[in-house]
Amino acid sequence: MINAKHQPVDAAEVPRFAGQATFMRLPAVPSAEGLDIALVGIPWDGGTTNRAGARHGPREIRSQSSLMRKVHHVSKIAPFSLANIADVGDLSVNPIDLMDALKRIEEGIASIIAVGAIPLSAGGDHLTTLPVLRAVARHRPVGLIHFDAHSDTNDSYFGGNRYTHGTPFRRAIEEGLLDPKRMVQIGIRGSIYETDEHAWAVEQGIRIIYMEEFTRRGASEVIAEAKAIVGSAPTYVTFDIDSIDPSMAPGTGTPEVGGFTTREAQQMIRLLEGVDIVGADVVEVAPPFDLAGMTAIAGATMMFELMCVIAAKFRS
Amino acid sequence: MINAKHQPVDAAEVPRFAGQATFMRLPAVPSAEGLDIALVGIPWDGGTTNRAGARHGPREIRSQSSLMRKVHHVSKIAPFSLANIADVGDLSVNPIDLMDALKRIEEGIASIIAVGAIPLSAGGDHLTTLPVLRAVARHRPVGLIHFDAHSDTNDSYFGGNRYTHGTPFRRAIEEGLLDPKRMVQIGIRGSIYETDEHAWAVEQGIRIIYMEEFTRRGASEVIAEAKAIVGSAPTYVTFDIDSIDPSMAPGTGTPEVGGFTTREAQQMIRLLEGVDIVGADVVEVAPPFDLAGMTAIAGATMMFELMCVIAAKFRS
Amino acid sequence: MINAKHQPVDAAEVPRFAGQATFMRLPAVPSAEGLDIALVGIPWDGGTTNRAGARHGPREIRSQSSLMRKVHHVSKIAPFSLANIADVGDLSVNPIDLMDALKRIEEGIASIIAVGAIPLSAGGDHLTTLPVLRAVARHRPVGLIHFDAHSDTNDSYFGGNRYTHGTPFRRAIEEGLLDPKRMVQIGIRGSIYETDEHAWAVEQGIRIIYMEEFTRRGASEVIAEAKAIVGSAPTYVTFDIDSIDPSMAPGTGTPEVGGFTTREAQQMIRLLEGVDIVGADVVEVAPPFDLAGMTAIAGATMMFELMCVIAAKFRS
Amino acid sequence: MINAKHQPVDAAEVPRFAGQATFMRLPAVPSAEGLDIALVGIPWDGGTTNRAGARHGPREIRSQSSLMRKVHHVSKIAPFSLANIADVGDLSVNPIDLMDALKRIEEGIASIIAVGAIPLSAGGDHLTTLPVLRAVARHRPVGLIHFDAHSDTNDSYFGGNRYTHGTPFRRAIEEGLLDPKRMVQIGIRGSIYETDEHAWAVEQGIRIIYMEEFTRRGASEVIAEAKAIVGSAPTYVTFDIDSIDPSMAPGTGTPEVGGFTTREAQQMIRLLEGVDIVGADVVEVAPPFDLAGMTAIAGATMMFELMCVIAAKFRS
Amino acid sequence: MINAKHQPVDAAEVPRFAGQATFMRLPAVPSAEGLDIALVGIPWDGGTTNRAGARHGPREIRSQSSLMRKVHHVSKIAPFSLANIADVGDLSVNPIDLMDALKRIEEGIASIIAVGAIPLSAGGDHLTTLPVLRAVARHRPVGLIHFDAHSDTNDSYFGGNRYTHGTPFRRAIEEGLLDPKRMVQIGIRGSIYETDEHAWAVEQGIRIIYMEEFTRRGASEVIAEAKAIVGSAPTYVTFDIDSIDPSMAPGTGTPEVGGFTTREAQQMIRLLEGVDIVGADVVEVAPPFDLAGMTAIAGATMMFELMCVIAAKFRS
Amino acid sequence: MINAKHQPVDAAEVPRFAGQATFMRLPAVPSAEGLDIALVGIPWDGGTTNRAGARHGPREIRSQSSLMRKVHHVSKIAPFSLANIADVGDLSVNPIDLMDALKRIEEGIASIIAVGAIPLSAGGDHLTTLPVLRAVARHRPVGLIHFDAHSDTNDSYFGGNRYTHGTPFRRAIEEGLLDPKRMVQIGIRGSIYETDEHAWAVEQGIRIIYMEEFTRRGASEVIAEAKAIVGSAPTYVTFDIDSIDPSMAPGTGTPEVGGFTTREAQQMIRLLEGVDIVGADVVEVAPPFDLAGMTAIAGATMMFELMCVIAAKFRS
Repeated sequence: MINAKHQPVDAAEVPRFAGQATFMRLPAVPSAEGLDIALVGIPWDGGTTNRAGARHGPREIRSQSSLMRKVHHVSKIAPFSLANIADVGDLSVNPIDLMDALKRIEEGIASIIAVGAIPLSAGGDHLTTLPVLRAVARHRPVGLIHFDAHSDTNDSYFGGNRYTHGTPFRRAIEEGLLDPKRMVQIGIRGSIYETDEHAWAVEQGIRIIYMEEFTRRGASEVIAEAKAIVGSAPTYVTFDIDSIDPSMAPGTGTPEVGGFTTREAQQMIRLLEGVDIVGADVVEVAPPFDLAGMTAIAGATMMFELMCVIAAKFRS
Repeated sequence: MINAKHQPVDAAEVPRFAGQATFMRLPAVPSAEGLDIALVGIPWDGGTTNRAGARHGPREIRSQSSLMRKVHHVSKIAPFSLANIADVGDLSVNPIDLMDALKRIEEGIASIIAVGAIPLSAGGDHLTTLPVLRAVARHRPVGLIHFDAHSDTNDSYFGGNRYTHGTPFRRAIEEGLLDPKRMVQIGIRGSIYETDEHAWAVEQGIRIIYMEEFTRRGASEVIAEAKAIVGSAPTYVTFDIDSIDPSMAPGTGTPEVGGFTTREAQQMIRLLEGVDIVGADVVEVAPPFDLAGMTAIAGATMMFELMCVIAAKFRS
Repeated sequence: MINAKHQPVDAAEVPRFAGQATFMRLPAVPSAEGLDIALVGIPWDGGTTNRAGARHGPREIRSQSSLMRKVHHVSKIAPFSLANIADVGDLSVNPIDLMDALKRIEEGIASIIAVGAIPLSAGGDHLTTLPVLRAVARHRPVGLIHFDAHSDTNDSYFGGNRYTHGTPFRRAIEEGLLDPKRMVQIGIRGSIYETDEHAWAVEQGIRIIYMEEFTRRGASEVIAEAKAIVGSAPTYVTFDIDSIDPSMAPGTGTPEVGGFTTREAQQMIRLLEGVDIVGADVVEVAPPFDLAGMTAIAGATMMFELMCVIAAKFRS
Repeated sequence: MINAKHQPVDAAEVPRFAGQATFMRLPAVPSAEGLDIALVGIPWDGGTTNRAGARHGPREIRSQSSLMRKVHHVSKIAPFSLANIADVGDLSVNPIDLMDALKRIEEGIASIIAVGAIPLSAGGDHLTTLPVLRAVARHRPVGLIHFDAHSDTNDSYFGGNRYTHGTPFRRAIEEGLLDPKRMVQIGIRGSIYETDEHAWAVEQGIRIIYMEEFTRRGASEVIAEAKAIVGSAPTYVTFDIDSIDPSMAPGTGTPEVGGFTTREAQQMIRLLEGVDIVGADVVEVAPPFDLAGMTAIAGATMMFELMCVIAAKFRS
Repeated sequence: MINAKHQPVDAAEVPRFAGQATFMRLPAVPSAEGLDIALVGIPWDGGTTNRAGARHGPREIRSQSSLMRKVHHVSKIAPFSLANIADVGDLSVNPIDLMDALKRIEEGIASIIAVGAIPLSAGGDHLTTLPVLRAVARHRPVGLIHFDAHSDTNDSYFGGNRYTHGTPFRRAIEEGLLDPKRMVQIGIRGSIYETDEHAWAVEQGIRIIYMEEFTRRGASEVIAEAKAIVGSAPTYVTFDIDSIDPSMAPGTGTPEVGGFTTREAQQMIRLLEGVDIVGADVVEVAPPFDLAGMTAIAGATMMFELMCVIAAKFRS
Repeated sequence: MINAKHQPVDAAEVPRFAGQATFMRLPAVPSAEGLDIALVGIPWDGGTTNRAGARHGPREIRSQSSLMRKVHHVSKIAPFSLANIADVGDLSVNPIDLMDALKRIEEGIASIIAVGAIPLSAGGDHLTTLPVLRAVARHRPVGLIHFDAHSDTNDSYFGGNRYTHGTPFRRAIEEGLLDPKRMVQIGIRGSIYETDEHAWAVEQGIRIIYMEEFTRRGASEVIAEAKAIVGSAPTYVTFDIDSIDPSMAPGTGTPEVGGFTTREAQQMIRLLEGVDIVGADVVEVAPPFDLAGMTAIAGATMMFELMCVIAAKFRS
């Protein structure tokens, strides 16, 4: 029954600045029970090697998501009519203890999946995607569409630390959570540690589309290739906000100039319709480094775009 | 039964940055039913003659109130043990229509009072205190302890507008909501429109304690006098954040240098214990002009201080 | 006589930071008498449904317009040689009373038109364009070239308020001020309230060019179509700064990512030469949300670009 | 005739944010002719050894002075009734050429004095006070009441530069513009270059009241001594905004923690009534380092306080 | 030989903004060999339970310490003449691994102490003081003078984490590094978790001087008591920047309004002359939350004040 | 011997925020002796006609250059393997005395060239390029590739000042330092002082490629032409950060909207490989006007890009 679905507060009735902030102005619910898509925050940045702050991401993304309305103006997807969606709050985390945090995050996402909801999360740093994948890919490896300035497939930092926001996708492959042949990374750029820094990733079969290739080929062609790579099997989508140019998303830990415009990013996500998305996230929004909420607005918009393409799966 | 009372989330368990923001990290409840004290937002600044922005006050005060803990370190008041307190959300407002907004606010507060809760609100501009008083003082005039840089007893602005944030207390007296003989204004300062600008207020019987007098006499003496003025009858407490110095509370519409330190303001509020407070507010926190959340932190702290002295009424 | 025309202060003689700020460093004059183009501020944002602040727009645009020089580097238009232009100050407004403000603004613009000057105004929120059109189109409907992220043709807000910055163009059509067949909206984007939100506008005959269409077709083609739509009859040009991307114009009330670059916006305005512009504005610059004056600089630049194409009308 | 005097725009009629910004919202006049007190900007910081930016001071002080009203709430001085006061604009300066700038500033102030007005200027860095004194003290040395964190009596910088904002008062004494026996410096603090850094100043007869002495003795006692030092002869008052604590005036070139509160500064200036002030300034407001206009508000308020005590001279 | 001592760059020769930033503009040296006092950074905030950012503290404190000069203007202490002081760089840390970081910090400080230098460090969060004390107090417990808003003697967080910036002094007592009878905490304030939150600390013998007691008694009396408590035996001084009011030090993780003014803090540190300081630190400066470098300036100034009283030990 | 070359600190070992900041995290060395490329700061902005602040550029560029890694991800150039590169500190400057500063800068660069190193400097305003060219082109005129919003070939300012940041390239041509036939300016835009403002430059033979031409033709074509213009003879590359759009580089003195994206700028610099670069600079980064270090990051990245193409010269 359509009117059983949660509906956001309408800004033509209640001004955007009013009320406790939730994702997309949806109801705050205590669990994912009965939801098709669960919007969830993961306020943790313990894997950050440079500038921390993504722990504050969920709160600010919630606040700025008040700017979103009900219908996508291009695709005409009306996500809240197609799917039952709500804000299930933030996962339990631990800012002091990395291994405990990873465990808590995995359990939190597992409980969402257990009741049949698709998790769409707001990070947190990119290491949070590892425990999310442990829950999402518990039973079989998934494909990955990965928007980022960085490959995040390094091996270790600081003399042996294997769990950082620069290593999640190497760990996920090693743990069998991702099928590297069904992985594509888009927007990679910036100076690198070693000439062969991406060799391991390429050897696994990951397709890396550097920013320069994207600039030459454009969104349509790149996403067509990405969709071919992941195919029709279950796929996770991870969107690191630092894939966007720092002028449009300054509030992040490791800015790299020369990134996507938000227009390009929106265009790409819209083209993902048809992919079997089993989970998605927007990570690395770090409000302490943000300006005028700009990065949180970009993050909230990318969540809205992802929510629309996921909701399209629920079209009868 | 003590454990029937709402309890805030504990920052030693859940980090302060986690979860949807509510006042004092208390549960968000749909109505004031069963509460002793209702924390409520009034996100409206339509009475502002200079810099608007207090409409954004409740959201930011909620966010910064995550810094508060459970017990007052000086008075040892444990408000959440003494009284049942929760966040009832924001009142319905109308950013476009002043008279409609005043009506909505009055009704919102009236519904809180109707179920026996004491409203402690976060504004909004100072005109919001007028409809609040219309609800609080519906059956008899109340006394007023008023912390502010400005007397807010002007008659009209812009060629005849009688409802602005510079006029609420003149209107409230005219409407019989306040007993001017039981009114005291503390911290008044700054250049004035006319030499006799405060003459009307003084003629009504309002006691004005200018900042300079406060500086000479100190908090203890001033509050002793204020308590004598309001006596034991029902009293409302209104705290305009611009009473605090702009260096400590820059995020406000009409800053006046030379204000209270937060230390002085805390000292004064703590001394209000024993006053029969029937409602209170913190107004004029304007986040668009704030710096590093400083004003919202000050506002949240003053709400906490007020909440403690109100909760003290519930000591058995 | 050319040297009878007002000239701006020259930054090679007097540094840009010196002197009281006026639009384009032109003389401040008490009335539009004798002017061809009157630069005027409308410091009012009482129609704003979300974040107010455009009331501060004119002052900051004045300040940043110190960066402008005398000649357009592409078109070589020298506006101050072609037309007599000055800063006539700000219109009388009323921040507290919406209907009074609309009346004051209409009268202010009418007095400019009465002496034969073309008004080029700096808002203020987009509702200010309604009373401006009441003055400009007093005797016949005009065409409209409208740069914006939003159509601003909604019907009402907050349970019946018909005058907000989301409704001016519906009202203007209803009042016969605009000929909807000669209206074009460029840059519209962002999530919408309802699937058919723009149906009314389209039914009236307004041509909506969404951002996505602009991205595909480019500035030349889009403006060629716009010029064909408005034809040679009198036309008003309204430029909402939120048509520009929030990274380039963060200081606005309702940011939508994925907007025009300033380069695209400049390119479009330059192509307007030849349109019979009878008035123009730049609205929704909201300094409290701005960063480093960036939005005010963009607004001042767009005013300069508009001033140049209007001045071109005065070529003998 | 009282109504011949210039009057500021009234914020109860025209909102504070409206109109081109002038000092105290007074009329902008082309010369000091007919004025008793000329408010004037000196947008120059070419003598700055560390962080420049005071060149932008006059514009921001003008903008924030919109917050001032007509009457002093403590002294009840109504400056605009007592004296004819207006904004004469900014002096001609040269940001590139130090010696040329000093000459231009001297000439500018001399032209104000020539028509009988008292200059009250907004700097600019503290070196601007030197050419001002050359004009003010052209015919006899004057006394000086000097509020500052620094003595500004060093000899030279950078291997021989004798004109910097660290040297003006040594130069002024050497040039016979100041009578060192009638000089008092209040608020001096912060680490020093050499143990005997202030020896020269003290030898000349300057009385230095360090911040620590002020803290012990208080405003009344200190100003009583200052008034005794300058006596009844002509005296200049210079107020370096860095005398105020950086938390209240962060926008300055050489911040030193531990400064005056604005309350203390206001208290001191108010007590200057009775001194024969022949000129005054507020210097070192550097907006690029300011926060929320806080320093410019403090500067505008200090100008207002100075204006009031100067206007008191015109009481009949 | 006096001229063997390292000297800072002189701002009267080289402007403050020039050159690579080091503490106090001293030479950067590779080790503490030959130094009396080693200025060292500890860029780590892995113990932070709320807002991280203190990892960026040393770099910004270095930058703002360019404002310091050579001699203390009150005590006339010339630290660089009395003691050999230099910047030994930052300790090796690990942002990802708490236990590894504690070990690295201890070793780093131990290597400074091994060559006979007194460490004066810039944190870093307050947990860094624990490994510092492990090095400083390796052979015997030391006394502690502790300036802070918080007691930092909690037992654990997040369900069992015993090492956070809220627990260092409980751990240090348990490890025998501190003699609780020779410990004094000054400036404690803010709401608390439980009524008896400080009971453990008091039972150990720690003297807690709350802000309210400080306000009543003043700096002289409080420091006299503190000096009596620590006596003549070796003592460590730890200065948490959040002891200072957030208006003067907003850039910190857990702000509490109502703190020390910088004037009060300076006054207290100056009175520490005579204490046998064997190490000291300034912690919790978190630049991402700072405004205009204000907190880093305050931190650099407190380091300078501490350096002066430590240097006084080297008077022959 | 490859391992004799200076290597930067590795962020996978030492976090980016740790340590005293140097250019690219390279060693700070006392002279250019033995270097192939000398990274050097020129902290001076005495030629600035509008907003000063570039004096603070080198320090912030150093700080943000911590984000750079060792290898270029597109060209695979590993600069630190090809060439010996280090940070030689800042040149001696004089913020108070223009002519003295020009002399000091020339001498500083001359001493770098004397030992055979190529200077790559971080300004400073654009006038600093004049004394740099005096050293670089001491023995023969050089070619110039000049990225900028402004031509900087004006004759004089403020009634005769011939040395400002708007005049360096006219002076350099007059002094025979530049061969105007081998000069190309790219990105020029913005309103101009006079219709024929660039006539002199064009008459000398300078090729001006306005932003609009760049937009039409693209980076490859434009740089191909630029390389043809400068040919194989020695060439200097100067990169004014204001060539980049103010949304990506707001921290500069004279912002002009409609500039290069960083992606376009990077693309252009990368194509410079093969040019015989004898010196290069990045100028006009003005941190006081910057946001979130964005401009300094852009500046550091452009330095890195330039360093890579210069280092390519050292390929054996």
